[in-house]
Amino acid sequence: MLFEVRTLSLEASIKRKLQLTAVKVDRFIDKLLVPNKPEEVYRAAHHLIKAGGKRLRPYLVLKTCEMMGGDPELALPYAAAVEMFHTFTLVHDDIMDNDDLRRGSSTVHTKWGIPLAIVSGDLLFAKVYSAMIEPGISMKLSKERVVSCLESLTNAAVILSEGQALDILQSNVVDVSEEDYIYMVGGKTSALFRTCAEVGCLVGGGSEEEVSRLGSFAWDAGIAFQIVDDILGVTADEATLGKPVGSDIREGKKTLITIKALEDASPEERETLEKALGVQDASTSDIDEAMNVLASTGAIAYAEKVAAEYTEKGMSAISAFPDSEAKRDLLELLEYFTKRSY
Amino acid sequence: MLFEVRTLSLEASIKRKLQLTAVKVDRFIDKLLVPNKPEEVYRAAHHLIKAGGKRLRPYLVLKTCEMMGGDPELALPYAAAVEMFHTFTLVHDDIMDNDDLRRGSSTVHTKWGIPLAIVSGDLLFAKVYSAMIEPGISMKLSKERVVSCLESLTNAAVILSEGQALDILQSNVVDVSEEDYIYMVGGKTSALFRTCAEVGCLVGGGSEEEVSRLGSFAWDAGIAFQIVDDILGVTADEATLGKPVGSDIREGKKTLITIKALEDASPEERETLEKALGVQDASTSDIDEAMNVLASTGAIAYAEKVAAEYTEKGMSAISAFPDSEAKRDLLELLEYFTKRSY
Repeated sequence: MLFEVRTLSLEASIKRKLQLTAVKVDRFIDKLLVPNKPEEVYRAAHHLIKAGGKRLRPYLVLKTCEMMGGDPELALPYAAAVEMFHTFTLVHDDIMDNDDLRRGSSTVHTKWGIPLAIVSGDLLFAKVYSAMIEPGISMKLSKERVVSCLESLTNAAVILSEGQALDILQSNVVDVSEEDYIYMVGGKTSALFRTCAEVGCLVGGGSEEEVSRLGSFAWDAGIAFQIVDDILGVTADEATLGKPVGSDIREGKKTLITIKALEDASPEERETLEKALGVQDASTSDIDEAMNVLASTGAIAYAEKVAAEYTEKGMSAISAFPDSEAKRDLLELLEYFTKRSY
Repeated sequence: MLFEVRTLSLEASIKRKLQLTAVKVDRFIDKLLVPNKPEEVYRAAHHLIKAGGKRLRPYLVLKTCEMMGGDPELALPYAAAVEMFHTFTLVHDDIMDNDDLRRGSSTVHTKWGIPLAIVSGDLLFAKVYSAMIEPGISMKLSKERVVSCLESLTNAAVILSEGQALDILQSNVVDVSEEDYIYMVGGKTSALFRTCAEVGCLVGGGSEEEVSRLGSFAWDAGIAFQIVDDILGVTADEATLGKPVGSDIREGKKTLITIKALEDASPEERETLEKALGVQDASTSDIDEAMNVLASTGAIAYAEKVAAEYTEKGMSAISAFPDSEAKRDLLELLEYFTKRSY
């Protein structure tokens, strides 16, 4: 009970802070995406940003900048850039994964067709760099810091493309090892998280070593975040998930839980899993039995343990920074990543 | 006869110079696209670059840099960047336009499927920026020049996305005016040509005014280049085109010629055109009759006149620069754009 109250107040606190970030960042993005001719492609590019999202990445940029004693106003264009970058990857990923729904709304290609969805993603990607070379920041930062920010984002874009390609090519969860999984999650989630922290720290005036430590913090936080996402995918209810219970299993999503369960399963348990994993028309009882195996093999508990380890690692990466409100906010964010209920 | 000999020697001269550019630029691109994990996405990204292409855009970068007295070695990463950028747009455009062949080879999505084609395009886009912030250049140029180069490329990326979106949304040639066409070609061809000249000039040490004049030169050259492309599309033979005669008509490609012909056609001529334009299964005689109308309405001659006007404009944009080998090369390139036979 005490734990639940603590979790709820943690979530409420983070939610309030994220909303404050969202107001500022969204206003900046609105300016960058003022429709030009043809308006339709701007509407498509803006669609998922308007549909929701937590704004975790902009928050990371602003808080790391603040922690270094920097001016968060200066970091605002970068905060907008990482959110637009994240959105660009969602638009393209939804096409590749053939997903219809995102943030409770139609995906861009479902609403506008694949050609316009591809080009609206490309437009967003271009606008990421428009934000990052905004005269307002490039005038106030040294060349080295401007270039380092661009390098960090570009590096994340390369790693993310590799991660997505890997996901496409290794379409069957049975072929994926735990090491592959961590590598893929690194590419698909942690690379951009790391960029957020690096960029915030760079704009805030951090040294090379501080950039590296904050980058490690965010990388580990990203892995923990993604593992918890996977856990929620098999433990949360439909209202929380925004999709039917068991969707991740039916889609054969590659998660640490399924990988571990397949590894440790007895031949019978493995058979039960294979009846449901990636089987679009699996029955409700097949799904239920598979979920039981995920629990009985200890795979869910194992994933919780690994998430906790990455959380620990992330916390220790910033332990040497002096106490500050922004540092406490970052630690609170990491705690939220692992304790969140949605 | 004399004209033909002159044209042939012009083509041979340009071809030789473009090949010299290709050797250097391709070597640089090879280094940027050294396969990482998974190799397949790098092979897909490299595919169209290896399949051919004239390397006009890198040539523009190197020659404009040289004309300003700059070191072409310093411009090489930018030359590689614009070619990778061009390739990225081809990969995505081929998906959007549902094209199977490009440069005599399978398109990327035909060979690897749409998901990997999308992500290999995204990877190329990211690598464009990797090239542009290469330590080798960003160390040697002022912050203002580094940022201006990035602005120019990013601006082209935005305009190109808009141009492609416009092309998708105005799918019927009947709805397109001459003004729309010039706007669209500006977006789809000239914007990147202009960036090539601006970036070359910036790296070469040009002043703001010189950057602007060379940019105008390349913008007009791009329009002329595209109009001539359209003319060749309805006058060249199959071997030269690399696709069946009349393909542009069957596909309903929006060209200055078809727009003008539709505008000036008598009701009977219009009917003849509408039997073939955008009609995938039009008969050979329907195509032949439509081609006759394109000639009889004077639309081909009109397009030649407009191309010549843009060529004139382009030439006058750089007339004030002192004579140099590089300037003569740029004028030769522009002459080739309008006189080329393929």
